[in-house]
Amino acid sequence: MTLVVGVDIGGTKTSAGLVDSSGTLLAVRTQPTPAAQGPAAVLDTAVGLVGEVASGAGEITAVGVGSAGVVDPRRGVIVSATDAITGWAGTDLRGEVSRRLGLPVAVDNDVHAHALGEQWRGAAAGYADVLLVAVGTGIGASVVLGGRVLRGAHSVAGHAGHVPAVAAAGRPCPCGGHGHVEAVASGPAMLAEYRGRAAAAVLEPSGAPGLADVARLAAEGDRIAVSVLTGGAAALGSTIGGLMNVIDPEVVVVGGGVAACGELWWQALREGIAAEVLPALREVPVGPAALGGDAALLGAARMALEVAG
Amino acid sequence: MTLVVGVDIGGTKTSAGLVDSSGTLLAVRTQPTPAAQGPAAVLDTAVGLVGEVASGAGEITAVGVGSAGVVDPRRGVIVSATDAITGWAGTDLRGEVSRRLGLPVAVDNDVHAHALGEQWRGAAAGYADVLLVAVGTGIGASVVLGGRVLRGAHSVAGHAGHVPAVAAAGRPCPCGGHGHVEAVASGPAMLAEYRGRAAAAVLEPSGAPGLADVARLAAEGDRIAVSVLTGGAAALGSTIGGLMNVIDPEVVVVGGGVAACGELWWQALREGIAAEVLPALREVPVGPAALGGDAALLGAARMALEVAG
Repeated sequence: MTLVVGVDIGGTKTSAGLVDSSGTLLAVRTQPTPAAQGPAAVLDTAVGLVGEVASGAGEITAVGVGSAGVVDPRRGVIVSATDAITGWAGTDLRGEVSRRLGLPVAVDNDVHAHALGEQWRGAAAGYADVLLVAVGTGIGASVVLGGRVLRGAHSVAGHAGHVPAVAAAGRPCPCGGHGHVEAVASGPAMLAEYRGRAAAAVLEPSGAPGLADVARLAAEGDRIAVSVLTGGAAALGSTIGGLMNVIDPEVVVVGGGVAACGELWWQALREGIAAEVLPALREVPVGPAALGGDAALLGAARMALEVAG
Repeated sequence: MTLVVGVDIGGTKTSAGLVDSSGTLLAVRTQPTPAAQGPAAVLDTAVGLVGEVASGAGEITAVGVGSAGVVDPRRGVIVSATDAITGWAGTDLRGEVSRRLGLPVAVDNDVHAHALGEQWRGAAAGYADVLLVAVGTGIGASVVLGGRVLRGAHSVAGHAGHVPAVAAAGRPCPCGGHGHVEAVASGPAMLAEYRGRAAAAVLEPSGAPGLADVARLAAEGDRIAVSVLTGGAAALGSTIGGLMNVIDPEVVVVGGGVAACGELWWQALREGIAAEVLPALREVPVGPAALGGDAALLGAARMALEVAG
């Protein structure tokens, strides 16, 4: 059976997974991403992890890499990136990994890898047309059509965080614009909103609360926490519903850290979607991603199988 | 050279055009759509027009039909439709036209036909990934990817009029929902807004003003007309900009009757788009459709050529 390695390079950690052609994850290794040390150190870490998971296994035929940033899978380079990894933009990701390993390499952004993983072995398995939305520090999406990821003409397709939302009107967005749904529905946006509205007294004595604390407070009935979480979820649901009317997917899968905020968040998300979709789309399944942190690894492995020849 | 006929069935009029395989429109015939008389009369009119344009020409090898409503091109039927044509939903458009003519027939909705026409011989010629938006009585879109129309899993892809817009918040939308951009940026929405805000005194003595009157008044500096037109255009631009961030097209083409409202409308549309798009998309060309009423005929003919083989 063909063996490949999928790699997931994020701003915080890098993982590599040994995967067979049936989509079984046989081994995983993870290390912190040496993000401040620049591209060469990040590439060395990724390549080292590939060697570790491949050690003692049979022959590896290809490697797939999902990376943070805007990635051009045709040229194999990082088109642009936030400063989560110093100097990452412009890196010849495919060329550098391929040169270090002497193997065919496929690259794409991590949200697309996430979607391919969920479509191969996760919540979207069996569907050809998928809208996957990842909600965490930012909000990204991947549109899978006929089993293939929509990359777009400039490799920026899927930036669903940067769609205007009523609830975000006037708020600055990390992209430099204003009023985009990411400015109100991302993890940091909801956390900042909670901190701004809640008295310091209710916060954990152990330090600044995280989004998980807000989710716990909401589940306990804290009025402000409920308002912030459901407000963010409703705004995101409204955006997803509008996108469904344009893309018309078979299934919608929502993943990322914020999707772990519990039933209140999910209920508001579903209501937000239901308020927008056309009648023909009311029965489209909407559900959580199934593979957690393994999704991007499996999706990257799927990309590797396509270049494994 | 292969000859086909493209047909455009709208709620008001039906046209048929004789087209050769190079995309030259050789003859056109148009009649009022007998919309109140039901599907059989509408189909007879369409088939009669095909016979007229084909009369004396060489052998016709196939017919393409673009129709109002949600059309399933795989089954060939009208999935749903407004009451613009009585009883149109459920009509076996492909089967009925094919049976009457004894020819292969391809069918799709009129906005998709419009997009295919512009992509073949109009403003999007030479581009593979196109976002076409048609703004008239309603707002529809067609997403062309790799030269092929995105139909979606339920044949409803492209309903860009039903995307939430800040400027439309709370307004009822013709789809039964609320707050969609069509509720503020369609021709009827802008006209109703103008009528609501303007004193009756300024209206044409000859009767109720149309959108063209509002556009003329705006060009003359009428404050309310300017506000209504630019408000609608800015809202639509904002929606288009958000969709560009998700779809990432090579080019955006805007057609339909409202796109003839003049430079004030276009300037507000472009500013609305520019305020939303990510930096990588700032240079994406945005321009008017080039083929006017011929676009849907040519697109339908293009569909016919695909089944002519």
